[in-house]
Amino acid sequence: VVSGERDLVAWLRRSFGPTTRELVGDDAALLTLRGDWALTTDSQIEGVHFPAGLSPRLLGQRLLAVNLSDLAAVGARPAYALLALSAPRGWPARELLRGLRPGLRRHGMVLAGGDVASGPVPGATLTLLGRRPPRGRWVRRTGARAGDRLWVGGFLGESAAGQRLMARGARWEAGRVTIPAQLDLERAELATARRAVRRHLLPEPQLELGEWLGKRRRAAAIDLSDGFALDLHRLLEASGVGAEVVADALPTAPGFPNLASRLGEEPLELALGGGEDYVLLFALPEGVAPPAFFDATEVGRVTRRREVALLTRHGPRPLPPTGWDHLEESTLELHEGRGRPSLRSPSR
Amino acid sequence: VVSGERDLVAWLRRSFGPTTRELVGDDAALLTLRGDWALTTDSQIEGVHFPAGLSPRLLGQRLLAVNLSDLAAVGARPAYALLALSAPRGWPARELLRGLRPGLRRHGMVLAGGDVASGPVPGATLTLLGRRPPRGRWVRRTGARAGDRLWVGGFLGESAAGQRLMARGARWEAGRVTIPAQLDLERAELATARRAVRRHLLPEPQLELGEWLGKRRRAAAIDLSDGFALDLHRLLEASGVGAEVVADALPTAPGFPNLASRLGEEPLELALGGGEDYVLLFALPEGVAPPAFFDATEVGRVTRRREVALLTRHGPRPLPPTGWDHLEESTLELHEGRGRPSLRSPSR
Repeated sequence: VVSGERDLVAWLRRSFGPTTRELVGDDAALLTLRGDWALTTDSQIEGVHFPAGLSPRLLGQRLLAVNLSDLAAVGARPAYALLALSAPRGWPARELLRGLRPGLRRHGMVLAGGDVASGPVPGATLTLLGRRPPRGRWVRRTGARAGDRLWVGGFLGESAAGQRLMARGARWEAGRVTIPAQLDLERAELATARRAVRRHLLPEPQLELGEWLGKRRRAAAIDLSDGFALDLHRLLEASGVGAEVVADALPTAPGFPNLASRLGEEPLELALGGGEDYVLLFALPEGVAPPAFFDATEVGRVTRRREVALLTRHGPRPLPPTGWDHLEESTLELHEGRGRPSLRSPSR
Repeated sequence: VVSGERDLVAWLRRSFGPTTRELVGDDAALLTLRGDWALTTDSQIEGVHFPAGLSPRLLGQRLLAVNLSDLAAVGARPAYALLALSAPRGWPARELLRGLRPGLRRHGMVLAGGDVASGPVPGATLTLLGRRPPRGRWVRRTGARAGDRLWVGGFLGESAAGQRLMARGARWEAGRVTIPAQLDLERAELATARRAVRRHLLPEPQLELGEWLGKRRRAAAIDLSDGFALDLHRLLEASGVGAEVVADALPTAPGFPNLASRLGEEPLELALGGGEDYVLLFALPEGVAPPAFFDATEVGRVTRRREVALLTRHGPRPLPPTGWDHLEESTLELHEGRGRPSLRSPSR
């Protein structure tokens, strides 16, 4: 009797190296863990985090990247992964595992176990364990102090632009991004658009930056997944402080404002609330700056007053915690009221 | 601005005690782990593992119980939980958390983190960490040897009968099970049916039995989730052995054969392949027996020959690895072909 799940497990034990072979096969993965560990879990569900028809292999890559970004935010070094997968029968589960494999290898990680179930739509939850690096500290949301400078580890809004492009028909096929002709983008815009789609689908978790932050005497960080404004509020609230953010300092990709406008979006709004940036927002004491190769950008400073102000050319204005909240009805209505495409691609 | 997810996290930190308050709030849960740990992850998805309309609180209880059963199988003592929840907006996520809480408390566990996302149907993935108890060994599937006796920790098929009853309209409401009148069951049958539904919805993970097995010089075990026959094959395959199982020895609940027949099911088939028993199947050296209060039943013995035989009154017959395989198309067809209700309730 051929058994699909058994086949998959056997394939997995063959394909994921000796440690996986040793670990996968019992009702639980049995690990010897010494020291300090960071655990995180995050899902990718069709129709919520990615559109139907996305390549299962790409989904595997994205699932890993999104989870690694959480480990990056606390300064952890990834070590183990557990996968809980559900999908309709016949869905190519192996492809998702193939998508996970290169990233696991690159980070020296081991797939230690998981669970397979049938389900109405493809969805996967990954749980990662990362260790505290030698001589590293945990980076927490609570570590920001008045006077600190705020930094962002990469472009804001680019991923959200990529998501909007996909909602309008942009596709990823065999590593190439195609942009529908009816969007009528010029050559330079096309390149910007392709980069945005790629960035949306394959975020680059800032693990080295996270480790670097963990080596500082003091640092605070959060993974930007639900939008800069909302996640900034989370960081500040955890630290009991406020902030001033300089609108013009917010880093965006070359050609981003133009692309956003072409998509009918306000560039600043997309940068502040688009979400799924998967770069780090962090606070460092004044005078401490990350090395230039991290390409991080200073965007403001932490204040004692527990308010969040956006400093614009027209003066300061309050910056509310808008962004993607998975349980907030009014957030959704707000977005929908602005005529956004119905396919949203949130995550936390 | 009110934020649903923030509200939920704040409520969670208030309601789940000081350790959760400390742990929840960063991008990853930060734990100090020393020694040997078992990690397991398991999902419950509406329409797959439970019917639409099931109480979210009960779902929380079931989700925890099913995951604890995996820890029981390796002899681990539960310690931490991470929850990845996805549900349509407006779904009462707090109720699921309320359902988790008593079980977490009872086992001295800490909810250490998680993730909330919107999704097309309610679904939840729980990841548990359990530690190896002092002076305990891990119990693995690989530990069975020729000559060992096979044991089962509880009734087989009862949960599957409960699932069939729910597919025919049995309901759990505020802790009470109602059986539809059109099933036309007699009084004694009704009691059996109610117990079956309760057992299906709220399995009792055999953690003490698992720990006891871990204190033996040698033991092998597997959690019976996909059906006795399939999981038995998994255990034997991992150990490189075969077995003889005595059909008449398989433990079933009082009144079970009659109830199964009333449901149009062959009692033996339901016991062998129904699945979701969430009791332990284990192997112990001859002469070693679990204490009587575990109510375990000896069901056969392990053989050197790598075949699995079912000894019936009419002689031996091969026992194929039938049961629930989440990826095996033909399994589903087989079941459907026999006129089973379309709501199946599998899990692993």
